[in-house]
Amino acid sequence: MTAATPWGLDHLPYGVFSRADRPGETPRVGVRYGDHVLDLADALHDEVFATGSLNAFLSRGAAAWRDTRALIRSKLATDPVAAGLHLVPLDRVELHLPIEVADYVDFYCSLEHASNLGRMFRPDEEPLKPNWRHLPVGYHGRAGTVVASGTPVVRPSGQRGAGVFGPSAKLDIEAELGFVVGAPTALGERPGRFADHVFGVTLVNDWSARDIQAWEYVPLGPFLGKSFATSISPWITPLEALAGARVPGREQDPEPLDYLRRAEEWGLDLTLEVRLNGEVVSRPPYRGMYWTPDQMLAHMAVNGASLRVGDLFASGTVSGPEAGQRGSLIELTWNGTEPVKLSDGSVRAFLEDCDTVSITATAPGPEGGLITLGEVSGTILPAR
Amino acid sequence: MTAATPWGLDHLPYGVFSRADRPGETPRVGVRYGDHVLDLADALHDEVFATGSLNAFLSRGAAAWRDTRALIRSKLATDPVAAGLHLVPLDRVELHLPIEVADYVDFYCSLEHASNLGRMFRPDEEPLKPNWRHLPVGYHGRAGTVVASGTPVVRPSGQRGAGVFGPSAKLDIEAELGFVVGAPTALGERPGRFADHVFGVTLVNDWSARDIQAWEYVPLGPFLGKSFATSISPWITPLEALAGARVPGREQDPEPLDYLRRAEEWGLDLTLEVRLNGEVVSRPPYRGMYWTPDQMLAHMAVNGASLRVGDLFASGTVSGPEAGQRGSLIELTWNGTEPVKLSDGSVRAFLEDCDTVSITATAPGPEGGLITLGEVSGTILPAR
Repeated sequence: MTAATPWGLDHLPYGVFSRADRPGETPRVGVRYGDHVLDLADALHDEVFATGSLNAFLSRGAAAWRDTRALIRSKLATDPVAAGLHLVPLDRVELHLPIEVADYVDFYCSLEHASNLGRMFRPDEEPLKPNWRHLPVGYHGRAGTVVASGTPVVRPSGQRGAGVFGPSAKLDIEAELGFVVGAPTALGERPGRFADHVFGVTLVNDWSARDIQAWEYVPLGPFLGKSFATSISPWITPLEALAGARVPGREQDPEPLDYLRRAEEWGLDLTLEVRLNGEVVSRPPYRGMYWTPDQMLAHMAVNGASLRVGDLFASGTVSGPEAGQRGSLIELTWNGTEPVKLSDGSVRAFLEDCDTVSITATAPGPEGGLITLGEVSGTILPAR
Repeated sequence: MTAATPWGLDHLPYGVFSRADRPGETPRVGVRYGDHVLDLADALHDEVFATGSLNAFLSRGAAAWRDTRALIRSKLATDPVAAGLHLVPLDRVELHLPIEVADYVDFYCSLEHASNLGRMFRPDEEPLKPNWRHLPVGYHGRAGTVVASGTPVVRPSGQRGAGVFGPSAKLDIEAELGFVVGAPTALGERPGRFADHVFGVTLVNDWSARDIQAWEYVPLGPFLGKSFATSISPWITPLEALAGARVPGREQDPEPLDYLRRAEEWGLDLTLEVRLNGEVVSRPPYRGMYWTPDQMLAHMAVNGASLRVGDLFASGTVSGPEAGQRGSLIELTWNGTEPVKLSDGSVRAFLEDCDTVSITATAPGPEGGLITLGEVSGTILPAR
């Protein structure tokens, strides 16, 4: 329980857990500290942390988020014995979906990812559609099928073409960064500063059935090719823990419209790592993303749409310019034509049954060193 | 309070209301009967109706829905004096959004609507995309901006082209029928019979900013052009009240895949009526819709996506083959080139500030005669 672990006082991500020694209890909010979870309802004597999700705490707003973090840090640093009474070993808890997801929006913010997909699917056209450099393209996903890391993912079945039905043969991942809205807005109201509305970040695997998606998506966008499952990390890293990772956003041409101008630095120097059955297959760099999360938030609400506590929006696949930096198999294998080779001699064009995909990320910590974001992982089960 | 009113014992739609004489009370569930609302929490001595939305009641499942309807009918028919104690005049209540919307899915089920839009936007191509006759095309909308009838709709601003920002100049309506899911499914589970999962129907106005939508929607579908507001009726008509409206679905060619085969008759003989500032501008017939709601439900869940209590799915614009049967202004005015003439001499290509749009519908009642669905209405306020 020292700062030498990668889950020290500089990070303290929030999650929702239940304790093996208290069966039947409503899941509780805690922060991860080393290999333990600090039970916040007990440690802070505050029932907002005993409500089964982070949402009630989030709805208290940004000042409360800051004060609570300061209080937790102070308790852990100055009175470890007392705090220790409320530390539960990680191996004695079950982790749950940390938020009740209100609306889920997925963007498409990587220039390299959008260009790669354009080249594959529309080889005779410009890879980017005319709108892409003018706005962060996005769409609504299915909030009800956002699941916690570790939830098995059953291979979806669906239409893969005219009269063709069956299990997806092109099951893929999308390694993304997700942003959790904590402070809402009213209908017609524009959000203020990014950090006054967004509580923190989580890793996202936006599982994608490419064959179902390719057949269905014209003209209204992805639907069943995505809606069977979206996995997120059990740990939400508060924005304050990313203070050391903030960098200027990537240069943009053309200059974005006023409402999309960046007022603060919300580029984030995170490096994701994608593992397939334990082997690293990609290291996508987040800092090169074309559209930054403050721009996503501004865009999402510019039409007067309200924000709710628990809204989740994600970056879209994080892909960098190098081959080893692509955040989806469809890019890594160029639509299956250049399969990934694994050390056991097998190859993968897309995911096979029993494959496990895990995504982690590291970022410069707020006090030097690195912090490690909570992993998001899932294993493919055969189609039913 | 007799069966001569259009809101008799054969209809009894559910809504959520608060009483002028009980300020501060959590809104309650009631059924409309004539010009009154029956306060169900009081009349049935059941706190499930005092929870602010229909969701808790819906989660009891289809057998409870049937039993409750039978109980209400029996109370109103056999003991009107006792029931009368719990009847609140409509003019002394405020109506609210009847459900907490979980996920909102919008389909595109009218052959005529999809063909009209194809002809307008892609005049050199086949009007229908290759997938259209094989599956009910749909996408997720924003659940958090589904609002109750009567909520003003602020004209949205947004990007209408490269470097062009401002209030939408092509604000439109979509007259639709919505379906409310009451009984959930687990992830990976396919729903059973339609009426075991779907509780009832409501009228939907899926407000659409055509200029914003046209610029943003490639390749991931509609987003800000729709997400500023979707209005629904305050009254949810239970499926049982539509027993007299059920008809065979429209013939389909090609024959749909197995999972989309119709096992029961869920075509619905409803006629919608769209009023612009009080004048009828269209009478879209629902019975001619190509894809029926049982097919929408089967499709939405075929990939294993779970259903939640409060999921709302809508048909997409209801348009018939005749010019006076189109459910959107973009069709009625052929993208603004043939404006609608109103009796005050004014014309409309799209909606102007202060315009009010109301949608109603009638259907054959379960005991003969007609029932009238709850109106959905909204007035446009100027952009902020």
